[in-house]
Amino acid sequence: MRLSQIGELSLLEQIRKRFEKQSRTIIVGIGDDAAVLKQGDMTLLVTTDMMVEGVHFDLNFTTPFQIGFKLVSVNVSDIYAMGGKPRYLLLSLAMDKNTEKTFIDKFFDGVQRAIKLYGISLVGGDLSSSKSLMSLSATLIGDTKRHIQRSGARVGDKIYVTGPLGDSACGLMLLKKKIKRPIPFENSDTPTPPSPLKGEGKGGGKSRSPDLLTLCSELGLPWKVVEPLLKRHLMPGARDPKKFVRYATAMIDISDGLLIDLSRLCDESKVGARIYIEKIPVSHELKKTASHLGIPPIKLALSGGEDYELLFTAPARKKVKSLHIGEITESERVMIDSSGKKMIFAAKGYQHFGIQR
Amino acid sequence: MRLSQIGELSLLEQIRKRFEKQSRTIIVGIGDDAAVLKQGDMTLLVTTDMMVEGVHFDLNFTTPFQIGFKLVSVNVSDIYAMGGKPRYLLLSLAMDKNTEKTFIDKFFDGVQRAIKLYGISLVGGDLSSSKSLMSLSATLIGDTKRHIQRSGARVGDKIYVTGPLGDSACGLMLLKKKIKRPIPFENSDTPTPPSPLKGEGKGGGKSRSPDLLTLCSELGLPWKVVEPLLKRHLMPGARDPKKFVRYATAMIDISDGLLIDLSRLCDESKVGARIYIEKIPVSHELKKTASHLGIPPIKLALSGGEDYELLFTAPARKKVKSLHIGEITESERVMIDSSGKKMIFAAKGYQHFGIQR
Repeated sequence: MRLSQIGELSLLEQIRKRFEKQSRTIIVGIGDDAAVLKQGDMTLLVTTDMMVEGVHFDLNFTTPFQIGFKLVSVNVSDIYAMGGKPRYLLLSLAMDKNTEKTFIDKFFDGVQRAIKLYGISLVGGDLSSSKSLMSLSATLIGDTKRHIQRSGARVGDKIYVTGPLGDSACGLMLLKKKIKRPIPFENSDTPTPPSPLKGEGKGGGKSRSPDLLTLCSELGLPWKVVEPLLKRHLMPGARDPKKFVRYATAMIDISDGLLIDLSRLCDESKVGARIYIEKIPVSHELKKTASHLGIPPIKLALSGGEDYELLFTAPARKKVKSLHIGEITESERVMIDSSGKKMIFAAKGYQHFGIQR
Repeated sequence: MRLSQIGELSLLEQIRKRFEKQSRTIIVGIGDDAAVLKQGDMTLLVTTDMMVEGVHFDLNFTTPFQIGFKLVSVNVSDIYAMGGKPRYLLLSLAMDKNTEKTFIDKFFDGVQRAIKLYGISLVGGDLSSSKSLMSLSATLIGDTKRHIQRSGARVGDKIYVTGPLGDSACGLMLLKKKIKRPIPFENSDTPTPPSPLKGEGKGGGKSRSPDLLTLCSELGLPWKVVEPLLKRHLMPGARDPKKFVRYATAMIDISDGLLIDLSRLCDESKVGARIYIEKIPVSHELKKTASHLGIPPIKLALSGGEDYELLFTAPARKKVKSLHIGEITESERVMIDSSGKKMIFAAKGYQHFGIQR
């Protein structure tokens, strides 16, 4: 049997069972966004996330700066999803020996921009030559006073997300199908602002260049519509949960798609969920671009990956400043549309090794 | 300019300068075997090390069990080299989706054997598909009461190694040039015993099979000579320094070769070194096999990588139970042969991106 016949999720489940509870200093082991470890008087969080050429990024439309930035962000997102503060970063980089030195320099420019943004330090790593495509892995260590697992959701809790969904998937689609070349943001722009509630992705007029104007006229879409989608895919910012973390009962970051990540949260919490399709936050830019591309925006918002928004639950009585999309139920997992029609949902989103469960 | 024109060492040096001292909780950052971090009342050690297909291993003569075992060992060796105790492991694995499930199972058998041996726990990781060769990365967290850096050697200190050198390089040579197929040890054998002073690599008669007998007659060497060399390469054990760690002033693990790693220790300590060629420990098995292959064994012992013995220094007055090979000097870096002839040495050993300094 091959990995493609098993799929990432059930492979992970097998590994998790095999390496369950090995020491009482391990509060959370394999299977959450990060491991939670008791070390002396501290609670440590540790996570690792890879970016593999041809799988996670395509050099035809990604700059090395963006890769460096995103590699840090995706790991920060995992620490944030546990309610933690990111601290120390390690990098493992396997690259062809014919890689240009400027590529590495710009990759590290992106890493540096990100670690300054998040207040973390690069403390170590490993460099290797590679006989094939690039493979980049990062490990991030953080800490927290109170960690939030995927498993804490209780029946009746409200379900929230921290920002619009589907933008990253739509940005990727534009890059793959229409743009087909790198769009650098690194010189003119900061990454996606940390709070989606304060006019995320608006503006951006500054970075318009003759080249981009041509591109926009080819696309038939204005730059201020296209830019936030591209940026969300190429240089996503991780969401710091500090404003609502005290209310959260369970949390996960949306890396593989809302439905798959909500299913994971439900699996771990042994609960169901009811979400309202019209409450799923969809950006103005996504609506405009998706309809232009002939795709229902809600499809991207439900199943598109890599938005790195947080999905969390909190008791219904708490006043939470985030985007409410549904409630935790006993066991049914349904989406309700504007007419009140119920549809059962399953984990749909990206899985490595090519299986959709 | 390409990476092949810069080389791993100067690239590392540039990265290190760029990310120097970012926080006062970082006691040692980039540039030693592991980072040393002050977290609450604990001193944490963190290291990461990759194994890339076609660079670190060749599936034509390596079993997945051996890869899993070695990936853990090489990281443990880095924690030991800082005087620490390894605790928590994370793995990042990028593999083709057509990889056989049994391959993964056996890889994890090897990981499991190693983590039991070293008393560590697997707490997390990341799985990804890969469009090309396999890329495996591990991060290991440990702790220590007193960390030992590369930079602590003082003039007059004696230089020690923990076991014979060159065995791994000779094993690799046998595998590449003569054997050209995997030799499983996993069912019959434990890894290289932890102390080289107690008859390491002797015996091994148990695992002789008709297949191995044929192999040995083809090689013209008995299995008890060949086996320890192969094992040292395929399933190296990391050396726990607990018996001498209280004396050590500086320490490094020999992963890239004695001369390159001794040069690193000298660079960091801003000292020189005098080593005696006849004191460099060379195993009986290496002598026999190298002469059979027509290579001077000392060449492999000086420049061969991946033995994962420890190289350390200690004050001359201390009685240290390890193998004395020389002394720390003010600045000259020399090897002295049995006739008293001095030769200057430079960092010679394995470097990624294909440069020999």
